[in-house]
Amino acid sequence: MTKTTISCFCLAIFSICGFLPADEGMWLFNGLPLDQFKTKYGFEPTPAWQDHLMKSSVRFNVGGSASFVSSNGLVLTNHHVGSDTLNKLSTKENNYYDDGFLAKNLADELKAPDLELNQLIQITDVTDKVKQAVKGNMTPGEAAIARRAAISKIEQTATDQSGLRSDVVTLYGGGRYHLYQYKKYTDVRLVWAPESAIAFFGGDADNFEYPRYCLDACLFRVYENGKPAEIKHFLEWSENGPQDEELVFVSGNPGSTSRIYTVAALEFERDHYLPYVLDFIRRREILLQQFGLNSTESARIARDGLFGFQNARKARMGMLQGLQDPAIMATKKQEEVEILKRVKSDPKLQPYAGAWEQIAEVQKKKAERLGTGISLNTRLFNIAQTLVQMSEEDKKPSEQRLAEFRDSARASLEQQLFSSAPIYPELEQAILGDLIARMLEIRGADDPLCQQILQGQNPLDRAAQLVDGTQLIDVDFRKRLAKEGTENSKDPMILLAKSLDSTVREDRKKSEELAEVERQAYAQISEALFATQGTSTYPDATFTLRLSYGPVKGYVENGTSIPPFTDMGGAFAHEKAHAGQADYDLPKSWRDASGKFDPETPFNFVCTADIIGGNSGSPVVNKDLELVGLIFDGNIQSLIGDYVYSDKQGRSVSVHSSAIREALKNVYDATHIADQLGK
Amino acid sequence: MTKTTISCFCLAIFSICGFLPADEGMWLFNGLPLDQFKTKYGFEPTPAWQDHLMKSSVRFNVGGSASFVSSNGLVLTNHHVGSDTLNKLSTKENNYYDDGFLAKNLADELKAPDLELNQLIQITDVTDKVKQAVKGNMTPGEAAIARRAAISKIEQTATDQSGLRSDVVTLYGGGRYHLYQYKKYTDVRLVWAPESAIAFFGGDADNFEYPRYCLDACLFRVYENGKPAEIKHFLEWSENGPQDEELVFVSGNPGSTSRIYTVAALEFERDHYLPYVLDFIRRREILLQQFGLNSTESARIARDGLFGFQNARKARMGMLQGLQDPAIMATKKQEEVEILKRVKSDPKLQPYAGAWEQIAEVQKKKAERLGTGISLNTRLFNIAQTLVQMSEEDKKPSEQRLAEFRDSARASLEQQLFSSAPIYPELEQAILGDLIARMLEIRGADDPLCQQILQGQNPLDRAAQLVDGTQLIDVDFRKRLAKEGTENSKDPMILLAKSLDSTVREDRKKSEELAEVERQAYAQISEALFATQGTSTYPDATFTLRLSYGPVKGYVENGTSIPPFTDMGGAFAHEKAHAGQADYDLPKSWRDASGKFDPETPFNFVCTADIIGGNSGSPVVNKDLELVGLIFDGNIQSLIGDYVYSDKQGRSVSVHSSAIREALKNVYDATHIADQLGK
Repeated sequence: MTKTTISCFCLAIFSICGFLPADEGMWLFNGLPLDQFKTKYGFEPTPAWQDHLMKSSVRFNVGGSASFVSSNGLVLTNHHVGSDTLNKLSTKENNYYDDGFLAKNLADELKAPDLELNQLIQITDVTDKVKQAVKGNMTPGEAAIARRAAISKIEQTATDQSGLRSDVVTLYGGGRYHLYQYKKYTDVRLVWAPESAIAFFGGDADNFEYPRYCLDACLFRVYENGKPAEIKHFLEWSENGPQDEELVFVSGNPGSTSRIYTVAALEFERDHYLPYVLDFIRRREILLQQFGLNSTESARIARDGLFGFQNARKARMGMLQGLQDPAIMATKKQEEVEILKRVKSDPKLQPYAGAWEQIAEVQKKKAERLGTGISLNTRLFNIAQTLVQMSEEDKKPSEQRLAEFRDSARASLEQQLFSSAPIYPELEQAILGDLIARMLEIRGADDPLCQQILQGQNPLDRAAQLVDGTQLIDVDFRKRLAKEGTENSKDPMILLAKSLDSTVREDRKKSEELAEVERQAYAQISEALFATQGTSTYPDATFTLRLSYGPVKGYVENGTSIPPFTDMGGAFAHEKAHAGQADYDLPKSWRDASGKFDPETPFNFVCTADIIGGNSGSPVVNKDLELVGLIFDGNIQSLIGDYVYSDKQGRSVSVHSSAIREALKNVYDATHIADQLGK
Repeated sequence: MTKTTISCFCLAIFSICGFLPADEGMWLFNGLPLDQFKTKYGFEPTPAWQDHLMKSSVRFNVGGSASFVSSNGLVLTNHHVGSDTLNKLSTKENNYYDDGFLAKNLADELKAPDLELNQLIQITDVTDKVKQAVKGNMTPGEAAIARRAAISKIEQTATDQSGLRSDVVTLYGGGRYHLYQYKKYTDVRLVWAPESAIAFFGGDADNFEYPRYCLDACLFRVYENGKPAEIKHFLEWSENGPQDEELVFVSGNPGSTSRIYTVAALEFERDHYLPYVLDFIRRREILLQQFGLNSTESARIARDGLFGFQNARKARMGMLQGLQDPAIMATKKQEEVEILKRVKSDPKLQPYAGAWEQIAEVQKKKAERLGTGISLNTRLFNIAQTLVQMSEEDKKPSEQRLAEFRDSARASLEQQLFSSAPIYPELEQAILGDLIARMLEIRGADDPLCQQILQGQNPLDRAAQLVDGTQLIDVDFRKRLAKEGTENSKDPMILLAKSLDSTVREDRKKSEELAEVERQAYAQISEALFATQGTSTYPDATFTLRLSYGPVKGYVENGTSIPPFTDMGGAFAHEKAHAGQADYDLPKSWRDASGKFDPETPFNFVCTADIIGGNSGSPVVNKDLELVGLIFDGNIQSLIGDYVYSDKQGRSVSVHSSAIREALKNVYDATHIADQLGK
């Protein structure tokens, strides 16, 4: 799955790529590779084409992509992107996540408790304004503050003038700054979801594999003023989907890539960061598995998190395996040697030569700091921390606050903070207890900060005391504290967050200072690359809208040809081949519908478009901007794409548009929905 | 489960315990607490009683305990102790592990490929002989060599004179050395095993929990000269089993405890060793789970290992949680302060006072060394390493060799080395690939040793090349290399082992030197404790025969009384309460037999006897030496027992003797076996 998960792990270093073989690239919508389209494919998209695709694309702020697919607000995304909402809407009695959901009419559609969807309206280059704020004699700390203030001002002004969500995005690792302005939709309702058994057919075993047989799709609808929103820019539905070798386009929000990374940064990833993260992921997987053993209800509660961590583990394993391949690293080293040679031999570029060394120095500091911070990332602790910090930050002018507390970000923050999504105390307790125990393991149990957290108890008892004692599960209580401030609160979780806040802030400051040094260094590297290779390239992914492209195309694995398409009938053969294994049972609806739908309907397909986590739910369109597919995964061979693109075997995996329509009509008895698609 | 697993993790530090509340203790058979038996229970066992129980007890060298239960060689142990053999005997077609096994007659009994069972015949104190070998002016390295030579000589002489397996055991952390002499049985055949579904009913969720409903039992038979061995010392079968509050005895082989550990050693466990080991265990769990997703056959192959790691994880989590409890650590600290005070105030004991500081110094070095060694622990690499080292060691006189290559140990070594137990190349490859990748993570991928292992490939490809290329899967090939030596072998796994051998030996030498410093320090601490508290106590567990005791007794948990007994009918209610959860489906045999057996037959019970991993399969006997139960687990509250015993809630869990007999007769149609029990 290619949803962006556990984004807290993604350090904010984004970048540029110097080498463009094949159909590589996650292109900015204000910098599409028009020359390449023309040269290689004889295709010349008009400005209207670009504008329509941009405005038909939708971002799920929980970490995925989507598209408008009807004039009356239907939004198509993956089941695994909708899963966060499906789980929040589910209860012990109504398990929409597992059993699926279908609204018979508008009145049936279920409102998501805290979804925010974004439609990109406009991109503006604000590089000069941001860069002017930083003066040459500033320390990294001062520079970060000055830049943050400038960005905050640009965002606030843009919000005030347009009423749009306005985010300044750091591109090319600090080489460019663009203002992205979005229309927000916050009244989002669930229309249709299939059963998890077919959405995630083959489960963890088939994840990141191909061939696949997954209906990883669901439909939401955006509302305005209590009515379905009228949508001007939506994608029409292709009659037959794509052909083999046909050029297709993917418009979505890849979360983050690291293609500009220097060798030192890649070595940090390989030898420190990824091993560290993978240990954490496996630990949480085991914890959630164990929690799920308590009862079928516990298993339901733990599952969305479990899937997320399984997915993250498999993705990061692929990344680490790529970096541990001597051949891949040798190529990266060779590239760096050559770039450095050119930089050092050009008097104009020589000032940039120190950037690589600066990045190497930062990596050493990051390795020392790995895991030393306060990590109590649970729903309840995060709420407490947000309230405590909000109390403090709101006393300052907006532009001096921590980024998430600025006025321009307040609506989005409050939507999360006051979400009515269920919080399960038993799960909170299990996770918090383990996080406290883990802090003891990393810092040593006698560490004063650990002792301060424990208050004389063992980690599990302390977690129980905190979760049992807090009132933060009550949304009204949160609203009251947000209004009154946390100064006088005796809530134990608030008291804990308060007691740790100075350490948390200090830690964040140090991290941001290191990030600032990196940002300045990567900005220099970007300038050096612009100077030597020109600016017609794409920056590393930033969970903002990008366009990727490439043909539908099979590949060869261990000497076997993998054809690009599977079909719906193949799902039954796949089930049979894996009889007796978990996650290979088709749902009853599919068994019952066998014979009713055309088994030769194409089901999933692969293409060479360059995608990464965050692209889940992206529409795949043809040259005529008809929707032909829905990205839901990349194969194992694509996972190294975080660092380097290759279309030799790496492929993105989509649900075929015809399968979605066929299933709606002939499996789910939802012709009333199918008939709205593309209209 | 309380089988000793992953014993490679158990550092060989064993010890003494100073405080004896309640019925604590894993007592030496040549040092039973006769006074306590008499004072507290009015019970005075005769020397014949002790001798009979000792000789009726059996050790499974794979890491468990057992007992003789018939004159014609029947051996009773746990299903999860027999599982190693059950899996080795199982194939894709005949899955004895899952489906159970019953020999209709002697001819049907299945020979285990590599089991060695030991019956303890005699214990002799050889402390003086060992201690005399070490002179005051020796360095730790010299002292270790001198002691090893002395031990080797004692063992070899004893073997030559008696024909018995003769092991010198280090007790009280080096305070005492005893010679243990065993009769060995190497022709061991499987007689009966129930289905895994009832042996491990409730699976990982119920493991270390109570109440339980598990028939965790199986029967083997020892043969001599191709016929069932005639056994003089075997346990009679109790007619009704134990009563509530009845005093019972457990005779088995607890693997290792750490009750003598100083506070510094406990802190090393808490802050370094256990977190490190748990990361490794979780990693392997995930790897084996993932491997099992490939197919039902892959799941079968991976499962025994997976269960072992799940069990180890739960046990070590319990230990770590105990050490992270400030109250438990505070007690240990207080005890140490008091002992040190007494040692420092007594002129005769003052020379021992430095021992605590020496141990603290060693812990620092151990923390630095954690994970830095070569760790490629797979069946095939281990075979290669054994053959390479054997080639080298056999050139030296026996007493100068590494311990496992001495003449006295040769027969046991060859039984493992030449075992025909199946080796699954796909599993070997997955584990070896991950272990190589893990070495890269720990040492950094550019480390010269890692590069030497990789030979220019990535870890997974290199593992595939090694496993595909080696012939070591062939037992005859191993025998040939053992005979001819490995000097001229071109086998890739042999070449790898050879290229790493000097590093492996150097690393082992450093570890042994640290262990020697610890051994000498703990020996001093033991002497100090003997001097202040007398010698009538027990040493830490050493996977040698010990006697524990205590009454059958329920306990209170979260305000609820947990009664000591469950019954066979309760298994059906337990199944119903966990409907829909994995591992809670009773096997068909039990469903079919419902109504045929007495549902009120006691099934499992708890007592306060002091046990730990390795005690699995231990007989539980009454004062008349009748078998009343079969240890198979400890509850969660007993897991801290590695460091400190408490009978407040900590309990050992047994299968009731009546359940075994009833199931054999009325579930498994095995009256012919049931009739042999105790006769």
